[in-house]
Amino acid sequence: MTHKAAVLGASGYAGGQLVRLLDGHPSIDVVYLGAHSWAGQSLGSAHPQLGGGDRIMGPIDVNMMPEADMAFLALPHGESWKIGSALVERGVKVVDLGSDFRLDSDDRYVEAYGQHHPLADDLSSWVYGLPELFGPSISAAGRVAAPGCYPTSALLALAPLVHEGIVEIDGIVVDAISGVSGAGRKVSADLTFGAVAEGVRAYGVFNHRHRPEIEAGLEAFVGAPASIVFTPHLAPMQAGLLSTCYGDLAGAAGDVEAVLKDFYVDARFVDVIGQPPQTRWVVGSNRALLSAHADERTGKVIVLSAIDNLGKGAAGQAVQCANLMLGEPEDAGLTSAGWLP
Amino acid sequence: MTHKAAVLGASGYAGGQLVRLLDGHPSIDVVYLGAHSWAGQSLGSAHPQLGGGDRIMGPIDVNMMPEADMAFLALPHGESWKIGSALVERGVKVVDLGSDFRLDSDDRYVEAYGQHHPLADDLSSWVYGLPELFGPSISAAGRVAAPGCYPTSALLALAPLVHEGIVEIDGIVVDAISGVSGAGRKVSADLTFGAVAEGVRAYGVFNHRHRPEIEAGLEAFVGAPASIVFTPHLAPMQAGLLSTCYGDLAGAAGDVEAVLKDFYVDARFVDVIGQPPQTRWVVGSNRALLSAHADERTGKVIVLSAIDNLGKGAAGQAVQCANLMLGEPEDAGLTSAGWLP
Amino acid sequence: MTHKAAVLGASGYAGGQLVRLLDGHPSIDVVYLGAHSWAGQSLGSAHPQLGGGDRIMGPIDVNMMPEADMAFLALPHGESWKIGSALVERGVKVVDLGSDFRLDSDDRYVEAYGQHHPLADDLSSWVYGLPELFGPSISAAGRVAAPGCYPTSALLALAPLVHEGIVEIDGIVVDAISGVSGAGRKVSADLTFGAVAEGVRAYGVFNHRHRPEIEAGLEAFVGAPASIVFTPHLAPMQAGLLSTCYGDLAGAAGDVEAVLKDFYVDARFVDVIGQPPQTRWVVGSNRALLSAHADERTGKVIVLSAIDNLGKGAAGQAVQCANLMLGEPEDAGLTSAGWLP
Amino acid sequence: MTHKAAVLGASGYAGGQLVRLLDGHPSIDVVYLGAHSWAGQSLGSAHPQLGGGDRIMGPIDVNMMPEADMAFLALPHGESWKIGSALVERGVKVVDLGSDFRLDSDDRYVEAYGQHHPLADDLSSWVYGLPELFGPSISAAGRVAAPGCYPTSALLALAPLVHEGIVEIDGIVVDAISGVSGAGRKVSADLTFGAVAEGVRAYGVFNHRHRPEIEAGLEAFVGAPASIVFTPHLAPMQAGLLSTCYGDLAGAAGDVEAVLKDFYVDARFVDVIGQPPQTRWVVGSNRALLSAHADERTGKVIVLSAIDNLGKGAAGQAVQCANLMLGEPEDAGLTSAGWLP
Repeated sequence: MTHKAAVLGASGYAGGQLVRLLDGHPSIDVVYLGAHSWAGQSLGSAHPQLGGGDRIMGPIDVNMMPEADMAFLALPHGESWKIGSALVERGVKVVDLGSDFRLDSDDRYVEAYGQHHPLADDLSSWVYGLPELFGPSISAAGRVAAPGCYPTSALLALAPLVHEGIVEIDGIVVDAISGVSGAGRKVSADLTFGAVAEGVRAYGVFNHRHRPEIEAGLEAFVGAPASIVFTPHLAPMQAGLLSTCYGDLAGAAGDVEAVLKDFYVDARFVDVIGQPPQTRWVVGSNRALLSAHADERTGKVIVLSAIDNLGKGAAGQAVQCANLMLGEPEDAGLTSAGWLP
Repeated sequence: MTHKAAVLGASGYAGGQLVRLLDGHPSIDVVYLGAHSWAGQSLGSAHPQLGGGDRIMGPIDVNMMPEADMAFLALPHGESWKIGSALVERGVKVVDLGSDFRLDSDDRYVEAYGQHHPLADDLSSWVYGLPELFGPSISAAGRVAAPGCYPTSALLALAPLVHEGIVEIDGIVVDAISGVSGAGRKVSADLTFGAVAEGVRAYGVFNHRHRPEIEAGLEAFVGAPASIVFTPHLAPMQAGLLSTCYGDLAGAAGDVEAVLKDFYVDARFVDVIGQPPQTRWVVGSNRALLSAHADERTGKVIVLSAIDNLGKGAAGQAVQCANLMLGEPEDAGLTSAGWLP
Repeated sequence: MTHKAAVLGASGYAGGQLVRLLDGHPSIDVVYLGAHSWAGQSLGSAHPQLGGGDRIMGPIDVNMMPEADMAFLALPHGESWKIGSALVERGVKVVDLGSDFRLDSDDRYVEAYGQHHPLADDLSSWVYGLPELFGPSISAAGRVAAPGCYPTSALLALAPLVHEGIVEIDGIVVDAISGVSGAGRKVSADLTFGAVAEGVRAYGVFNHRHRPEIEAGLEAFVGAPASIVFTPHLAPMQAGLLSTCYGDLAGAAGDVEAVLKDFYVDARFVDVIGQPPQTRWVVGSNRALLSAHADERTGKVIVLSAIDNLGKGAAGQAVQCANLMLGEPEDAGLTSAGWLP
Repeated sequence: MTHKAAVLGASGYAGGQLVRLLDGHPSIDVVYLGAHSWAGQSLGSAHPQLGGGDRIMGPIDVNMMPEADMAFLALPHGESWKIGSALVERGVKVVDLGSDFRLDSDDRYVEAYGQHHPLADDLSSWVYGLPELFGPSISAAGRVAAPGCYPTSALLALAPLVHEGIVEIDGIVVDAISGVSGAGRKVSADLTFGAVAEGVRAYGVFNHRHRPEIEAGLEAFVGAPASIVFTPHLAPMQAGLLSTCYGDLAGAAGDVEAVLKDFYVDARFVDVIGQPPQTRWVVGSNRALLSAHADERTGKVIVLSAIDNLGKGAAGQAVQCANLMLGEPEDAGLTSAGWLP
C-alpha cells in the first residue's frame, strides 16, 4: 500500500533531505511540497542537487493541499503549531521536525523559549519521536514531535545507562560538536564561509534551548528529574554531530559497553562499537554510532555518540517515525550506509 | 532476475562506493568482495561508513571467487589486466573502473604510461564505457572499461559540439578542478589534510595520463584526431569535479546550449542547465550537469561540466554500464539526487 | 621618519589586513580608522582577531579625519571616487584598493560596469599600482589604484612573456581559482558555509569585471590591444588565488622559464619556481609564485601564478605601493613568509 | 644586543613556525637549522611557504653547530633528551618544544608514556614554560620545557580559578577540540584530507598523554594533587585549539569573570572577553582568549580557552619563554594579531 505524504517546509535543509529520502521510499509518495517564501518556485530552485526539480512548491495552507495520509513539518520554530492541529483534525498523521511540540510542559517551554506555549494544552498529545526509546508510543501515535539533533545523540548515549543505574542522573555534562547544517539554511554574518571555516566555537553556554529537551527526554525515559550541563560547539563541516557525554559511575565501572550493546541489540540503526565513532562514518545515513568508556580513577563514564544531524538527527528520524506510524518496516526508505568515501 | 556480482578492489574509495550502490541495487547481489592488502579483514574495517560491515573481504583470485555474472574491478593501475581476461574466459561480464583498458592503442598507452601495454592485442576488445556516447556498444559488450573521471566530464561537454561541427577540434583546452578522492585512498605527504586544506594547486601540467584518454575518446566519437591541452587542479573538498572546457567556435555562435540540450534530451543522467553548475549539486549522484556559453568577441565557447568524481566519474558510471550489459533499466540502483544539503 | 596614515574602510576584509600590516610597519602610524556602517564601533567588534581592538572607527569623512600623509581606501566599488579627489586636494597621497580608478578609459569602464564613470576625466591621473610592471610611475604618483586580485596574478604571469614576444597577445585564456575572501565580507546565501564548502563553481563566465582590467593592464604594458578570455572560479578556502594562464607560443618554445626568471630577477616579491606553485605557499605573505611550462605538441604556454588575494592581491600590494610613494624600502612592513604550516 | 639561535627540528610544523617568528625577531638571529631526515636539504623544500628558502638544514648534532646563545628543540617525542643536556653543558640556553621534560616526575612520565624516563634525575632541572603562571622561574632558567598545546589552553583557563578557591580541584573535565596541525607533520592514513575533512572525532579517551601534564601543571601552581578527565577531539581545520573546561563551583558563583580578568590584568597575551572566544580569532597570533561562565542551577563553571596550537601552543610560547630567558621584552617578535580575515 502506498501512502500519500506532504512535506511542508520543503525549501530548507531538513525539507530537502526529506524529499530526497521520500523520493526513494518504496511505499510513500510525495503528493505536495509546501514552502513559505519559496512558494510558487520550483523545488530545483531551492535544491539544485535534487532530481525532479521541476516540481513547484505551493503555500503552507491545509486548504491548498491535496488529500494526504501523512504530513512532515520542517518549519522554523514557532510555525508548526499553527498548522499541526488543523492537519490532525483532518485525519492526517503528522511528524513535526520542528521544536514546537518536543517539550512535555509549558514550564519547560518557558525555560527554553522565554514565553508561554501558544497551545500549552496540546503538548501532552504529541509523542516524542525517538524510536529506540519510545517506539511503541510512536507506533500508536497520530502526532509525533521528532527530537532535535543534539537531544537525539545525547539521549541515545545516556538514557539506557542512567535507566540501568550505571550512570548517576546528577552531574551529567554533554559536550557536543555539530556541523553547520544544524543551523538550517540561515543567511547570517556568523555563518558565512569566511566566519566558519578554519575555526571552532562554543555557543549557547548553559542556556541552549536543547538543554531542557534533553532533560525532558531523560526524565521521560528514566522517571526522575535531571539537571544537565550542555555545551554545543560549531565545527567547520557541513553535517555530522558528535556528543561527548560525561557522567558519574553509580558503582563499579563494570562493563558499560556490554550494557549499552545489550540495550540496542535489536535496534536497526544504533550500533555500539569498540572505538570512538567518527561523524564521517554516519553522515548520509540514519545510523547512530556509540562507544562507551569507563574510568575507575576518576569514577567517570564517557559515552561518545555520532549521528548525521540531518539524518538520524532530523529527516531520517522523521521517516523512521513515519514508518512506525504507518505500519511499514522501520527502515523503509532509509539507509545505514554513510555517503562519505 | 537477480545477478550475482563480485567487487574486486573493495577496500578503496571507488570500491566502497560500488558496494554502497550495489547494496541498494534492486537486481544485483554482491556475492564476493575482493581486496589485496585488506584481504581477510572485514568490509567495516576499510569502510566504517558502510552497513553490513562484518562481510569479510577475500583475495583477488578468480579461483577463490564464487560463481558470478558480473565483476567490477576497482584496482590500482596495472592490476586489472592480470585478472580481467581470466574473468572474461569464465563467462563473467566485466566492468573495469581502472585505467588498464581505456586507451584504444598501444601507442596511446605508451604516451600515457611510458611503457608498452602488457596485453596490447586485447585493447580493442574492451568497449569504452561512457553510456551517453557509446551506449549501444556497451549494451552489447562483455568487457567494458569505464572512463576516468576527468575524461567523463570533458567528453560529455565537448564530444557533441565537436561532432556537430560547432566547436573546432583543434585548440581545445580543458581546465579541471577535482576533489581529493580522485587520487584514491593513497597515503602520501601531499594528500594530508595539512597539505590540502586551504590551498589549490595544478598538477600534471601538459602530461597528465588522462589527456591521451580524452583525445582517444574524442577521436572515437568524432572520427578525427585531437590534440588537447588538459590541466587538472586539486581543490580542498572530498569529491566533485568541474571541467571548464574552452574551444574555438567553428562558425557563428548560434545556440550552443540548444544543440547540447538536444543531444542529451533522452539522457537520464545528463542535464544542460542555464547557469554554471556547481559540483555541490551532483556530489552523491550519478548526474552530470552542463552549461554552455559562447562569446562572439573572442570566438570562444566554454562548456562547464560538473560530476561527482566517485559517482558519474567512477562507481555510478560503472553501475550504469553494468545495467546496460545486463539488460536492466539504465538507472537501476542509481540516483540523480545529490547528497549535500 | 614616520608617516601618518588613515585606513578608510577598516571594517572589511582588506581593511582588516591593512590594519594588521600597518600596525607592524616600521615607519607608518595608523592615525585614523574610518568605516561606513561600523562607524562608532570598535575595531575589535569588526575584527576580533586584531590586537588594539579598542580603537574606535570614525566616519568616512575628510573633515573628521586628523591630518595624514597617506590614505588607504578599502571601500566597496563606487565609493572611492566620492572621497579620493578630496583627499588628493588636501595633499594626502592615496592608494585605492577598490576598483573605481583601475581602468584607463570611460569606454573600458562602461564595458566592465555598464555605466559611465562619474569622474571620467580623472581616470588618467591615477597610476595602476602593480609595482613589478609600473614601479617608477608608482614612485612618482600621488594617487594609485591598486589592481584587483585576479589582474595582479594574471598580469604578473603574462605581461613579461607577451612583451618579449614569446606569447601571442591573441588567444589568451586566464582560468583562475580564488578563495572566498575575494568576495569580501558580504553576507549572502551563496557565500554561506553551507553553500561554499565541498564545492567549486565558475562565475562571471566571459563577463567578469576583472577581464577589462586585465586587458587594460596588458595593453598598458605591451602597447597593443588584447582580447582575453577570463573565467574565475570559487574554491572552498579562505584565501589564495591561482591563475592558470594559457597562451599561444609566438615561435619555438625556448626557455620561457628563463625569460620569466630574468624579468623578475630583482623583484623582491615575485619568484619563478620549477614546479607548479600552491596557493598555500603564499597565503599570509606578499609573495607571488610563478611557474612556466611550454608544450611543442600543441604550441601552448601555461604560466601558473599563485598569490594571496588579500596580500599581494589587496592589502600587501597597497602597502608595497605606499612604500614606493613614500620613499620607504619596498618591503617595509611586508613579509615573504606565508603563514600556513 | 643580538642573540644567536639554533632551531633543531626545523622541518616540522612547529619548527617552520619558529623560523618564521625568529626571522622577524628584532634581536634574535637564526644561525643554524637542524633536521633529521631533511638534513642536507633546503629550508624551502620542507617549507615552501617561508622566505629565505635556500638555507640548508644541517644535522642535529651539537658538534656540527656554530656557537649559539639559545637553542630551540622542535623534535619528536623521545629525541630532545638526547641533545638537551649536551647543549646546556655548552652554556646554550634551551627551550624544548617537545614533551621530554614537561613532567615533574618519573612516575608521571610512566603514567603518560608507559616507560621510565631515560634521564629521570634531570626532570627537576627543567622549568615548565608557561609564562603567565611561572614567569619568574622561566626568566631565571637555563632550560625550559614549553608546555603542550592542550595543557597551555587548559591551565590558563583553570589554574587561577582553582588557585583562588573558586573552582574545586576535584571533578574537572577538559573537553578540547584541535586543528590538525596539532598532530605534527605526520603522514598517516587517519590524517589524510579524505579522513579528516567533514568529520570530527574524539581520541585518547581517558588516557591522552597530555592529561598527566595538565595535572602536573595544576598541581605545581595550586599545590594540591589533581585528577582530571581530558578528552581531545580533532576538527577539520589547520590550526586552532579550543578547550571547554568544566569545574564545580566551590561556593557561590560570584563573578568568576572578574577574578580571571584580574589575574591576567598584566598578561600581554591573555585576554578575558565577554563572549565565547573563537579559535579563528587567535590563529596566527600568540594570544589566548578566555571567557568564564558560571551556572547556579548546576553549580558548574565553564571556562572557554582558545589558542593557536602552533602559536601560543608551541612556537609562539617558545619565543615568549626565550624572550624572558634572554632579558628581551616578552613580546619581541610576537604578535597579538591573528591572521584570518
